[in-house]
This record gives sequence, structure tokens and C-alpha cells, in this order.
Amino acid sequence: MIIVMNRDASEQELDAVVRKIREFGLEANISRGTERTVIGAIGDERKLSPDLFNPMSGVEQSLRIVKPYKIVAREWHPQDTVIDIKGVPLGGRQIQVIAGPCSVETQEQMDLSAEYVKQAGCRLMRGGAFKPRTSPYAFQGKGVEGLDIFRRAADRLGLPIVTELMDVRMLDTFLEYDVDVIQIGTRNMQNFDLLKEVGRTDKPVILKRGMSATISEWLMAAEYIAAGGNHNIIFCERGIRTFETYYRNVLDITAVPVLKKETHLPVIIDPSHAGGKAWMVPALARAAIAAGADGLLVEMHPQPCEAWCDADQALDPGELKALMGDLKGVAEVLGRTA
Amino acid sequence: MIIVMNRDASEQELDAVVRKIREFGLEANISRGTERTVIGAIGDERKLSPDLFNPMSGVEQSLRIVKPYKIVAREWHPQDTVIDIKGVPLGGRQIQVIAGPCSVETQEQMDLSAEYVKQAGCRLMRGGAFKPRTSPYAFQGKGVEGLDIFRRAADRLGLPIVTELMDVRMLDTFLEYDVDVIQIGTRNMQNFDLLKEVGRTDKPVILKRGMSATISEWLMAAEYIAAGGNHNIIFCERGIRTFETYYRNVLDITAVPVLKKETHLPVIIDPSHAGGKAWMVPALARAAIAAGADGLLVEMHPQPCEAWCDADQALDPGELKALMGDLKGVAEVLGRTA
Amino acid sequence: MIIVMNRDASEQELDAVVRKIREFGLEANISRGTERTVIGAIGDERKLSPDLFNPMSGVEQSLRIVKPYKIVAREWHPQDTVIDIKGVPLGGRQIQVIAGPCSVETQEQMDLSAEYVKQAGCRLMRGGAFKPRTSPYAFQGKGVEGLDIFRRAADRLGLPIVTELMDVRMLDTFLEYDVDVIQIGTRNMQNFDLLKEVGRTDKPVILKRGMSATISEWLMAAEYIAAGGNHNIIFCERGIRTFETYYRNVLDITAVPVLKKETHLPVIIDPSHAGGKAWMVPALARAAIAAGADGLLVEMHPQPCEAWCDADQALDPGELKALMGDLKGVAEVLGRTA
Amino acid sequence: MIIVMNRDASEQELDAVVRKIREFGLEANISRGTERTVIGAIGDERKLSPDLFNPMSGVEQSLRIVKPYKIVAREWHPQDTVIDIKGVPLGGRQIQVIAGPCSVETQEQMDLSAEYVKQAGCRLMRGGAFKPRTSPYAFQGKGVEGLDIFRRAADRLGLPIVTELMDVRMLDTFLEYDVDVIQIGTRNMQNFDLLKEVGRTDKPVILKRGMSATISEWLMAAEYIAAGGNHNIIFCERGIRTFETYYRNVLDITAVPVLKKETHLPVIIDPSHAGGKAWMVPALARAAIAAGADGLLVEMHPQPCEAWCDADQALDPGELKALMGDLKGVAEVLGRTA
Repeated sequence: MIIVMNRDASEQELDAVVRKIREFGLEANISRGTERTVIGAIGDERKLSPDLFNPMSGVEQSLRIVKPYKIVAREWHPQDTVIDIKGVPLGGRQIQVIAGPCSVETQEQMDLSAEYVKQAGCRLMRGGAFKPRTSPYAFQGKGVEGLDIFRRAADRLGLPIVTELMDVRMLDTFLEYDVDVIQIGTRNMQNFDLLKEVGRTDKPVILKRGMSATISEWLMAAEYIAAGGNHNIIFCERGIRTFETYYRNVLDITAVPVLKKETHLPVIIDPSHAGGKAWMVPALARAAIAAGADGLLVEMHPQPCEAWCDADQALDPGELKALMGDLKGVAEVLGRTA
Repeated sequence: MIIVMNRDASEQELDAVVRKIREFGLEANISRGTERTVIGAIGDERKLSPDLFNPMSGVEQSLRIVKPYKIVAREWHPQDTVIDIKGVPLGGRQIQVIAGPCSVETQEQMDLSAEYVKQAGCRLMRGGAFKPRTSPYAFQGKGVEGLDIFRRAADRLGLPIVTELMDVRMLDTFLEYDVDVIQIGTRNMQNFDLLKEVGRTDKPVILKRGMSATISEWLMAAEYIAAGGNHNIIFCERGIRTFETYYRNVLDITAVPVLKKETHLPVIIDPSHAGGKAWMVPALARAAIAAGADGLLVEMHPQPCEAWCDADQALDPGELKALMGDLKGVAEVLGRTA
Repeated sequence: MIIVMNRDASEQELDAVVRKIREFGLEANISRGTERTVIGAIGDERKLSPDLFNPMSGVEQSLRIVKPYKIVAREWHPQDTVIDIKGVPLGGRQIQVIAGPCSVETQEQMDLSAEYVKQAGCRLMRGGAFKPRTSPYAFQGKGVEGLDIFRRAADRLGLPIVTELMDVRMLDTFLEYDVDVIQIGTRNMQNFDLLKEVGRTDKPVILKRGMSATISEWLMAAEYIAAGGNHNIIFCERGIRTFETYYRNVLDITAVPVLKKETHLPVIIDPSHAGGKAWMVPALARAAIAAGADGLLVEMHPQPCEAWCDADQALDPGELKALMGDLKGVAEVLGRTA
Repeated sequence: MIIVMNRDASEQELDAVVRKIREFGLEANISRGTERTVIGAIGDERKLSPDLFNPMSGVEQSLRIVKPYKIVAREWHPQDTVIDIKGVPLGGRQIQVIAGPCSVETQEQMDLSAEYVKQAGCRLMRGGAFKPRTSPYAFQGKGVEGLDIFRRAADRLGLPIVTELMDVRMLDTFLEYDVDVIQIGTRNMQNFDLLKEVGRTDKPVILKRGMSATISEWLMAAEYIAAGGNHNIIFCERGIRTFETYYRNVLDITAVPVLKKETHLPVIIDPSHAGGKAWMVPALARAAIAAGADGLLVEMHPQPCEAWCDADQALDPGELKALMGDLKGVAEVLGRTA
């Protein structure tokens, strides 16, 4: 940590900062510049926090030098982590497209969806049984019945399933239904109790980025899961909130190369929630793979116009199949397969 | 709801939209303009959603006309709601300043804090037993022991207490300790299961705004609580996330007059988390009351430099007392008391 | 335009709105709903503005139905516009990468740059003679001398040149030096006098997006140029400002499919200014072409470490060449050439 | 400046950074930590830029320690600057409300406006002759004729005038008409050529904040004016762009205490453009003064409904007068007069 003193800070103020650094078992390096004196704390900076120094008299600001995340950091784990999802590898040379409807509606809809997902060449399936909705009066998902329907539909075709967990009290049920990948939604990225609980399981977790979470906060949210012992974490960028109103969110494509540099864990993109419109999905999906993403989370519905939620953003089966062709081409340019 | 058709939409496409409107029991008004045909749905718009129409062939966009919130809306409840917190009114002519430390540390610290809060003229006390922290390695709060300490310290001086609930499984404990006001933090504004559960109690709830929640999403989060039967909701603006990096958040002062227009429920401001620095608090606190806020949530610590968290933003007891004097003056300009 | 009345608006208030609509030569359609009466204005909506109705008594809000841009809109010009830049087509099947240094430094540097640009297979060259710098104390560009250096270096290899115009008083000099493409920078996207002046020339114009401009404002800025008679406009997305601090800007990749839908004009991406780091450029550049962009504006410097400005984001000649190979592959997936 | 090296940076990489620091005439302090080596540059940091070091091999990041602005900084000029506008002091104990219509329309409208401004107790008048409009098809202002009308109306009542300069070529005309305060609008905050030119005059300048400008960029824009010799600069916060769509902009009230700390120059607020609705203005105006602003820029129109632009945000004469009473009360709480 670097502590910058005010221009007119006194020797006593300086000494107090040095004493505080030593209290935490670190050493201090003092660098007297022409306009500012800067104190460097030598030792494990993670023991310190800017809050310790900022309110002290004579301190202008204090800055972290070392990244606060550790288990998820590539710095300490240089090789890529490949997560095994019932035999399907995520994070390796092969990209994975996780497709399926926004919400589980009926057994027929899910059976049909599973077939289309399989036919398009996807190896993992998504579907929501518990839905976070802005309005309390909107359809909230089929709940446990939905899990049951989804499990049946996917099992018939041997597709591992991905579904969202919203309430920590539902975790045991998710384990009973042997949900293959637990999704933590954007609104729960900093629901720390939920993160701690999934951190105690060994299930792969898709951690969606909070709609205005910084890269650093997102990595720290993953660190919550990792700190519990579960290192099977998949980052999913799904668009961030900005001033633009033409589209629902702004897909932050830059997050892909940045996360690939900062963490060894897989990174996927959700182009459906990012743009919010089915016609934007192919362009965003191709861009994601071109930027180096390890996979996608894509909404597909047998009949988009009849979907019970987010109808506007679901691809139809034909569109999904066509997209898979394009993605294969882009993946090959990067030396990958689809 | 207004459905705008594409310039070249066909009669069949138009008919399909009209049929869909009628399916939901509403009537359609068709207005043929020079460049666009616009269809208005006549009836209870809340039964519809833009998602129903946007994916239909020939539809350009669809727009809600009526606000989606109802119980919390001033439109249906014109007079101000005053919430009674063990005899302390919030939302009426008297403004309320809820003060106290960021986190419960020790019995001594809380006893001392309670005395300073009382001496400054505040009638409600805040303090955190469960702390949402960005890092899993940071102090997470004293937990239930903290609730116990807080309860004792506040009871001695007859101060009702405000504290944050993060985990739905802790609600019963909060009720046992008879927490007077349950705070829902910014990261949980859309933790819908948590909202539903506090909606089943009759405890006053402070609902902090999500750090990038729109006014509309915030009102809908309150509607979740209200729909469960609990109408004792207090909105708390605590700064929003923007591009500016000089301060932690941007206090959205405009939210005060806007919420006072949209809802009958009380609105308070947290100037401490907004700016993130103690020296900004007095200016922001005065601005909040001048803009019409019903109260404040302010961090105060007997010795800010020794605080276990957010030391940088806590007022010391003298600063709190001085602030109360200013706020009294501003309140009087608006015909209120402090 | 749609005018939504308050729930309790009177007949007189309604009549006043209808009269106002008729004053502007349009007709009114009145739709009486259960909760709101909605008035539609039938005729050329561009004559109206929400400002005319919003302050009227009884009006809740008014909404545009038709897009405010016309000349640049694809609605009125469905086929793609291909701009001819001294024989190099931009906006057609072939993508164009405009490469070169951030700023013109010396004749040697520009001669060398031109050679590397050509060798990499690029057909257009960029370079800044006038530099918009945050600090008045930073290098402001070589000015007219820079134009002269650039012109010589590019002419030797037959590369058309792209350079930024900041001051309207410099336009004649740009025309004298026969600058092939005039770039309007992000800070000048709404410098309306500058837009009007370049609108009177017939030079192709690259219009960079303002750092927090909406898609609609950007299209309207282009409409300023087009209204003057110059339809040779190229949109350039260069990253928008958000809350994220890890990278300089967030490349808004969604703008590509959206602009391709809204306008017939070419769309390019500047991955260098978006991310602000050379190591992010290849990923962002591939994503841009994968999303459907017609080209790129990329910074390259013979020796990035020695660059006088933005050294951090320039590719070196070898990196540019490698990138061109990847882009060719991605372009082919979309049926294009590079 | 602080340069942080990568964990595995070599001695040669370290030496190269030290050599670069010395090339610029500064000295280096090396601090070897457990995880990172940090190099501090001792001397005038303004000669350096992060760009010099970031692209060097082995460098992780480099950080400024000293603020880049100097003339406008309070650090070097601790006492408040009071600007004299034809005898009206701005920045002192008395707050100033600059009121008037959005745009100059007719002589009658401006004469009437001047009377209402005077009657309300304001001492300065605003009005726009050149209007920056999003659409090229909207009313662009009366131009020079507008200046003439405004000058006459204000002179009759002895009110100094404030009006916006958009085009650098119009500066001489502004000087001819002896415009008392030149306003630089939000879209031109980084129109550096315009800033340089007004920096060569001695006219007071109101510098509006760019709609997504950081505090630091804003101070640097002022430094452009100051560097030319003109230190009569007034900062005007007018709302920033965020994700919120209920109001046009978010008034950044925190900018008031922050600017008062960072600069000795006056700070005012424009509540009219911030909220975009007349009904929000009184709350925002009171908040601004309560936060410590030195004044306001407020839109008032004799008949808001008939205004040619921004009708929605103008106060009527009665509302302005009532507001002035409130502001007086708030000012007194802070020991100021109105």
C-alpha cells in the first residue's frame, strides 16, 4: 500500500502512519518528493485497508498496489482452468454454447427445447425454474416443479443442466435434483450469504456480473465462492448498465480479454440479456467468441412469440442452428473448435 | 399500452396485435398516422407486457403508459404516510436523523455511541451486526452477538434501533431481538426472496436504493414488500454509481423531489455512504433536508480513526452535534422541525 | 407524437392539447383508456416537440413515435452506402483498417509508419496533427507542419490520409492539404458549428461518438453534417464512458448491429482508444469485425515506447501485421474480405 | 509519480524505468516490497505522464501522486476568489441567482423577463442567442440579433448579462456587445480551441461541466482558460449523465463541496438543465445553496408554455420570486446573504 501525505503534513503525522503500518506487522519505506511525501508499506498488503489510513491526520490518500483477489487470480495460477461438467469441458479449446428457454413452462416445451438444443450441436442446456422479476405481479417461475420438468427433459438427451439459484434455502433442493451448474444471477452477485453457501458445494457455478459491478468487485465475488473451497467458477458477462437507452444493457466485450488476463477461470458471455433483442444476438455472439470467450449462454425457445418471459430476446431453433455455424467459423480463426 | 407498428406493417400483422390485446380482455384503439400506425390497448394495462408484442411481426416497439407500481404510488394514496417507530414519527413534519457507527464492535463502543447519538438530539440509532463486505477476507460483522450488544446499548437510552438484514434465514432472529427497523442494503434491493419475507412482517423497513437501480425499479422493489402486506417502507437514497471516481458514489439528490411526487412513503438520505468521506457529510446532509428529505442515516463513531470499518466516512460526536444545529435551521426554512 | 394525459385531466385540458396539435397542421386521435386518455398526433411529427406539450396543464408526458433523423436513416435509404476514398471503398464487402500513429512526430517517423501500414496490407492511414489533450501543458500536436509531413509520407505510398479537425478556422487549411478523410473527435461530436462547416464540403467525414452520446444523439450529429449536403459520413465507435475503471472506455460493440440497422452509412470501430492498452486491441478488433463493422481505426507506431502520446495503446508493426491475418479470417466467416 | 513493477520484473527492466525518470530530470526512490517493487519519481511530476512508463517492459501500472492542475487549485491559492461582474460579486458571502429565459425570442419577451428578474431580487440575467440543439431542424437561436435584443433589455435595468458562446469565430462580436459573462456550454467543455480563445480575454467565464466530465477533467478545462491569463472562471454544475431515465440528468450535488475544496474559484449550479422539469427546480436550488454553492443559473420565462425552447423547465415569474425567499433562508443558515 502507498500512503500519500498532504503537502504540509508534519513529522508527527508521518510517524503516526509509520507506527500504524508497523502495528500490522509491515515495514515502511519513506520517499520524500518535492511536493509530497509518500510512504510505502512493505509486507503483505492484504492485511491493510485504505480505510485505516485515510482518516488519519495529514494523509491525502492511500492506494492499494496489489490486487485483493488471490485464489481466482491468474498471477498465482498461470494455466487455464478447464471445468468438467459431466464430461463436457468448459474453458478449454472447445467453446461451449449453453442454450435453452428463459423459463421452464411445460414438459412439452422443455422436451422440444432439449431436442432443438441437441440438434443445433450444443452440449449444455439452460432454463429457469425460479425467475427474478422486476414486478411482484409478474410470473415468478414454476419453482420446484420446474426443476423436475427440466431434469426429465434434459436427462432424456443426456444434456447437463444450468439453472438459477436465487434463495439460499433452495440449495438443498438444487442438490437433490443434481443441478449440474448453479447460476448466480446479476442481482445476486453480491448476495454474500448465497455465495458462501454455493462455495461449500462442489458444483460448477456460473457467476453473472452485477449490472454495475466493476471487474474487481466481480473477481472478489468469485473469491467469496473460492474461499469456501469451490473453485469451479465460470464468469458470465451479461451486459452492464450505462446511459444508453436503445438497448437494455451494453455488452462489455472488453471484459473478455481482461478477465482472461486476470483469472485462470473460464469466461462466457450472455448475448441475449445483454442486448435484449433476438436480432442483436448473432452479432454479439460472434463478437464474444472472436474476443476470446470460452462459451455463451443463449436463449432459445421453440416458439419465441409464445414464451412466458423475455420473448423478445429468444432465438428460434433455426436461428440457433445458423448461429452455431458462424461460431464454428470464428472459433477456428482462433484455433478453437465449437 | 401503446403498440407502434412498422411503417410497412400489413393489415394481417395489425390484426394479430389487436387479437392479442383482446385475448387479455382489453380493447384496441387504432390510430393511423402518416408514417406509423399506433394501437392503444384500452383496459388494465398491468395485464400486458411489452414482451408480448415486441417479438410479433410488424411491431416496432411497445410502450407502457401507466406506472407499474400501485400500492406504493401516490396516485392512489395522495396523503403522506407517517411511519411510527416506537413512538418516533418518520415522514411527518419532524425530520429524523438516524445516527450511529458503521458496525457494532464492543459493548463499550455501542454504549458510548448511544450516548453521543442521544446528546446530539437524534431519536433513532443505527449500527451494523452483519456487514456486506466486498472482500471475503474483511471483517464480516459480529453477527448475533452484535445484535445483542446493540439492543442493550440502545435500550438503556430508549433509542429504537435500525440494523441491516442480509440473509433471509436470520429474519426470525431479528424478530426475537425485536429490531425496530430492518434495513435492506443496496446489494439486496432486488433480492426478491428477502423482500417477500420482510413483506410478511409488520416491521418498518428501510429499503436502500440499489447502486444502479432506476427510480422505477426501486419503487417496484418496494412494491414487492408492500404486496406481502407490509406498507411500512422507507426509501433511502445512498448514492448511485457513475463514471466519477473522485467520490465513492454520486448522491442523487433529484431522487428526493421525484420520490415525494411518485410515492406517499417517507424518503431519507444516507450522506455517509454517498460521498464516502466524513468531510463531505455536512454539505450533503444539509442539501438532503433542503431538497425535502424526511430524514437521514448518518455514520458517527466515538473515535472514527479506530473504527473497524468505513472509518473514513464517520463523523465524530462533535461533528454530529454541529450538523444537527445546521439541519434544524434548514428544516425551519421548509416549515419543518428537527 | 403521443400525448398522455393525467388521470384526472379535464375536458378543457384535453381540448387545449388538441388545439395545439392542430395549430401545427396535424390532426388528433383521442383514445380514452381506463386510467389514462392518450392523444395521438396524426401528420408530420417532426414539426412537434415534447416540449410543446409537457408544460401544458393536464399533460403527464409526451412521446415521439418517429425517429428524428431522416437523411442518415436506413428507413428512407435501405441499401448500404459505400464511400469512395480516393478509390478505396468503405462500407462495402471489403473491410478497411485505417492504421497509423496517434500523432505526427517527425518525417522519419511518418515515412516509416506509412511503410509499415502498407506492408500490413492496410489501404488507408491515420495520424494526428492537431491533438485534443486533457492538459494545456501536454503536447498539442505539430499543427500545420504535421499536416505537411503526413501528406508527404502518405503520398509516397499512395495512401489516402485521415486526420482530426478540431478548430473550424482550420478547415480551409485541411482542404488545401487535400486531407482525404476529416475526423471529428469524440469531444466535438456536438460542436455543431464544426459539423455544419464540414457538412458544406464533400470530404468523407469520420464522426466519432461522443464519450457519453446516445445512439440517437450520434445519428442526429450526423444529420447536422448531412443536412449541409455532405452525405459521406462514417460512424466510428470508440468506447463509451461507464463506471468501470479497469479500462479507459467500454467498447460498445452493440452499437455495430444497431447502427447497421438504423443507418445506411458505414460503421467502423476504434479499438485503440476504447481499451486504451495495446494488449486489448487484437481481441476488440476481431470482435468488431465479427459484429459486422465495416472497418477499424487502429493506432500503430514504429516504436510504441517512444511515441509522443498514447504510447500505451499503439501496436507495433509486427502486431499490426499479425492482426490483419486474424481479421481476414473473421471477415471471411461473414462473407467479406479484408 | 509511482511506478509499480510486475511481480517478476527483472533488474534490467527496473533500471530502464529509473533511467527514464532521470532523463526527465527527476530522481528515483526504489521500494522493494514482498510482492511488488515500487519506484517513486522525486521532482516535478508534471513533466511525466503514465504513458511514458506503462508501455515499458516489466511495468504493471503508474500512478500520478500530484494533481495535474495548478492555477485553479486551492492548494496554491488558499483564499476564495471573488469575481467582480460589473460590480456584482460572485464567490463571496452573497449568493447570486442568474435568471432569465432559455433563449432570446423578442424584444418584448426580453424586456418583460428583465423586469421579472429584477423584481425577484436577482442581480444578473441569462439568455441564449446561440442555442446548441440536438437536431439541425430545431430553432438555433436568434444569433447576433438576439445579442442586440438582450443587451438593450438588460441595459435598461442595469443587469449584467450572461450568454453562451459556441463558435470561436463569434468571440469578437461578443466583445463588441460587451457580453458581461461568457458561458461555455456542456458540449464545449473540451472544445480546447474555444477555451484557449476565451482565456485570452479578461471576461468572466462560466464553464459548464461536460455531461460526463470528471471533476479532474473539468478542472483541467478551466486550467486551459487560466493558462491563457484569464483567471475569472466560474464552475457551473448542470447535471451529469447516468443510467437514470426519469430525469434528464443527475444533479451532482457532491461536486459542490468537492470543488470548494479543490479550487478557489466560484461554483454555481444550474438546477433547470439538471432536472429538466420546472417542478424539480425549487428543491434542487435549495439543495445547491445548502451544499455551499455560490449561486445558481435558473431559467425563468414570462410565459413558460409559450417558450420557444426548453419550455418544460422554465419557472414562471411568481415561482422565481417564491424561490428567492427560500434561498435567502437557506443562505442565512450558512451565514450568507441572498
